[in-house]
Amino acid sequence: MEPTLQHIRDAAARIAPYIHRTPVLTCATLDHMAGTRLFFKCENLQKVGAFKMRGAANAVAQLDPKAAAHGVATHSSGNHGAALALAARLMGISAYVVMPNNAAAIKKQAVAGYGAEITWCEPTIASRDEFLSAVVQRTGATVIHPYNNERIIAGQGTAALELLDEIDALDVLITPVGGGGLISGSAIAAKSLNPKIRIIGVEPEGADDARRSLAAGALVLPMSPASIADGLLAPLGDKTFAIIRSYVDDIVAVSESAIAHAMRTVWERMKIIIEPSSAVTVAAILEGKVDVAGRRCGIILSGGNVDLDRLPWGQ
Amino acid sequence: MEPTLQHIRDAAARIAPYIHRTPVLTCATLDHMAGTRLFFKCENLQKVGAFKMRGAANAVAQLDPKAAAHGVATHSSGNHGAALALAARLMGISAYVVMPNNAAAIKKQAVAGYGAEITWCEPTIASRDEFLSAVVQRTGATVIHPYNNERIIAGQGTAALELLDEIDALDVLITPVGGGGLISGSAIAAKSLNPKIRIIGVEPEGADDARRSLAAGALVLPMSPASIADGLLAPLGDKTFAIIRSYVDDIVAVSESAIAHAMRTVWERMKIIIEPSSAVTVAAILEGKVDVAGRRCGIILSGGNVDLDRLPWGQ
Repeated sequence: MEPTLQHIRDAAARIAPYIHRTPVLTCATLDHMAGTRLFFKCENLQKVGAFKMRGAANAVAQLDPKAAAHGVATHSSGNHGAALALAARLMGISAYVVMPNNAAAIKKQAVAGYGAEITWCEPTIASRDEFLSAVVQRTGATVIHPYNNERIIAGQGTAALELLDEIDALDVLITPVGGGGLISGSAIAAKSLNPKIRIIGVEPEGADDARRSLAAGALVLPMSPASIADGLLAPLGDKTFAIIRSYVDDIVAVSESAIAHAMRTVWERMKIIIEPSSAVTVAAILEGKVDVAGRRCGIILSGGNVDLDRLPWGQ
Repeated sequence: MEPTLQHIRDAAARIAPYIHRTPVLTCATLDHMAGTRLFFKCENLQKVGAFKMRGAANAVAQLDPKAAAHGVATHSSGNHGAALALAARLMGISAYVVMPNNAAAIKKQAVAGYGAEITWCEPTIASRDEFLSAVVQRTGATVIHPYNNERIIAGQGTAALELLDEIDALDVLITPVGGGGLISGSAIAAKSLNPKIRIIGVEPEGADDARRSLAAGALVLPMSPASIADGLLAPLGDKTFAIIRSYVDDIVAVSESAIAHAMRTVWERMKIIIEPSSAVTVAAILEGKVDVAGRRCGIILSGGNVDLDRLPWGQ
């Protein structure tokens, strides 16, 4: 069943002990560049450095005691794996994460550091699914999908709930789009509170399946998605796509150079670290892909997990 | 006259329209490393990227109309110059900044971008003073010293006021020490609100004149100060030293490698950009130079102005 505003409110109460209420920052220089007022919800400052902690905490907290005793499992080389690992640890249950054996060292460390048991697979979908099935067979763990899951979607919606609670009269809300969990939850929260708000999603040009799907009216799978915004390569799920069709006004795509430029601009002017997947929203504004002039604009900065030894600008 | 808590409270009300109320962030990983709870007052997220905006706004706002008509002047290649320029612009008056002709391009851009008139001098104290005198002769501007000034000190104290207002029962407050404006204002605010709080200053080993001065009981000038913490090279002033002697419990010094390591740790774990001058406080904790175990500890992260093309770790 599609999550409602009430599910998102319930999620907010449920996860409060496990997450940060992240700050909303503003920046006069970026306002000047955009020709309007921008309000940045800083999920890069969330626990594990990404909004994913919200959905993971909401899903783990709702397991019944019997299921919880067997733990949770997922395949993710990114922020969801780390978030599920931390949420499980905070609630005293086991987490099993299947990761490709070519995952970046920093991601391995994060997941291992939060106490999850890692199972290595080959970097293929077939191997990943095979190893996840084996983990579930062995442990009885509950698989928590990173985005195509109502509890995850409701949890991700709590960031927008906090943003709209704190900032009045937003005209537009912009979020990145990967698998669609963040924008789905955000759109339900924001449109339920203010039906006039426009919801805009942003993707990299190299992984623009959500834009194509919305245009086609049917789920289009990405062909060889590629981008420095490595959190946005996943395809939409059927649940997130259905919500996007109902609630999202537009999806736009931005270039790789615009992403790198926007990321650096935020680092330099706002003094916060955002990952490329977060920078797509700012890139869309700076490139003029969304018309925000004169409109009060909320932006969800989704995460800040970056390998500081591999920055997307010349050193 | 030495500023009092009331001066700092008045400053807070006076500068509120011109500054950000910066967030206080926490980080479970750093808490774990430190063996206690740490509360980071994020002045790196302040306007112009540094606490200096507080003092500058407080000083500019108190000029009488006749003096304001002639503008303000300073010599500063760093955050004070940018802060004075922005404070002046926001209040509709002129700012004149004398800068050495070898200042980093990013610093020139900041000061010029905030609308100040820059006068270039040779990178010597004699040239700097000569050019500043000439500017004052020509314009009638009021010179605003970066730290040895009661109104600047009171303004800088407002960050600690906000921190103690937001976080209960701090046992220790740690700040960097350069010219002493930040620690002076912070110490007056914090000790006035809670006489039992310990105030600890941190310097780079290569510019440890405050530590030496406190030990000697007399102002010791730094000999060829050098550090990547380029905001902490200035000598104490007589006013800041007098306050430090009265209110500060200890001053410790940290190594260059500890500063770079602490800076990177904060970037990686907290997802915020701090400059080396801010990282000295975290370095002191991670190096064990201050005993914080089990003590609730406030830290003022003083600024976030970093040249992203010159990071103090290998690329």
